[in-house]
Amino acid sequence: MDKPLRIALPKGRMSDDSVEYFHRHAITSFSKFAVDRELIIADKEKGLEFLLIRSKDVGAYVEQGAADIGVLGHDVLAEHKFEVLTPVALPFGACRLSIAYPNGKTDWQNKRNIRVATKYPKLTSRYFFERGFNITIVELYGSIEIAPLTGISDVIVDLVSTGNTLKANGLSEEESILDSTARLIVNPVSWVFRRAEISKMIDTLTAF
Amino acid sequence: MDKPLRIALPKGRMSDDSVEYFHRHAITSFSKFAVDRELIIADKEKGLEFLLIRSKDVGAYVEQGAADIGVLGHDVLAEHKFEVLTPVALPFGACRLSIAYPNGKTDWQNKRNIRVATKYPKLTSRYFFERGFNITIVELYGSIEIAPLTGISDVIVDLVSTGNTLKANGLSEEESILDSTARLIVNPVSWVFRRAEISKMIDTLTAF
Repeated sequence: MDKPLRIALPKGRMSDDSVEYFHRHAITSFSKFAVDRELIIADKEKGLEFLLIRSKDVGAYVEQGAADIGVLGHDVLAEHKFEVLTPVALPFGACRLSIAYPNGKTDWQNKRNIRVATKYPKLTSRYFFERGFNITIVELYGSIEIAPLTGISDVIVDLVSTGNTLKANGLSEEESILDSTARLIVNPVSWVFRRAEISKMIDTLTAF
Repeated sequence: MDKPLRIALPKGRMSDDSVEYFHRHAITSFSKFAVDRELIIADKEKGLEFLLIRSKDVGAYVEQGAADIGVLGHDVLAEHKFEVLTPVALPFGACRLSIAYPNGKTDWQNKRNIRVATKYPKLTSRYFFERGFNITIVELYGSIEIAPLTGISDVIVDLVSTGNTLKANGLSEEESILDSTARLIVNPVSWVFRRAEISKMIDTLTAF
């Protein structure tokens, strides 16, 4: 018997959505992970093994072959450009990467140099560059939405799903620079050596 | 009256140690932050304002001048090389950046290419390069200590304070590549324009 196919999922909301979706397509034998969230969870009946890790680490795990398959947001894939295949867009994890600014403070568009706080420096740079804006990227790791309040930036570029976090922090959404959903990603070596199993899984996922 | 001097602190253990240390040297009027941890906390009596943010963001806040002063670990400063001054080493936040490997698996030193998982790619690359090792860096953001278990790396380079996390994950510490404590960092423009206040603070901190 082959060793199980290993699937890396981002801990939290996206792993919940993934396993529910996989179960609906009869790929997993369960529709939920146990509450205590072990790191490695086996589905012996289906010959699968799940790794629950941080969202930002899923790309590295699949790229390096520590997992054959992964689920990851298009936003993270577009920013980091991992060496992985992305054969399937999945119907969950919808969000957008948007520009936002403090309510009423619309003068940032006329500044000679706009300071933009973001966790997505590459996508943000490219967007403003293509539109002829001169910006300074302030790359942050924590709560982006508080950046204008502290004076470190004029605007932010951050992930928005419902828009409630922006509202709660007195920010107005200008426009989306990228629309995102979850993607299935595949290690290129696994794509060759475990092609039959992976193709079958993709066929099942895209059948309905 | 001048606007308050603004001090950025990493949320958590290091902000607790910092404010306690500042209070012992009569720099703050309180020795603890309120439990609910607001983002911006004023010490009006002393003309100070504290920003509690993520450790990884403190460097950017001080570099960009959104804070005049900050406290940050030498490990983060050595990895990221922010454009800030570092006039004072502080006597807390002691830890070391160490190489660790799964208990008993000492064969990694003889590998032609060692895979090293870390949050500190620059310091790690330089350390192994200088010793003639050929390595592949796997940059991760989450729980580094589980990396060898999942097969993504042979060894890790991670922060160690007590060593309990390594033990709990079946890892042996090889050696430290950097010893770290907290540092006081200063924005270069503030250093010029608020020199008197900042010098006075440094004198007080280093007096005993």
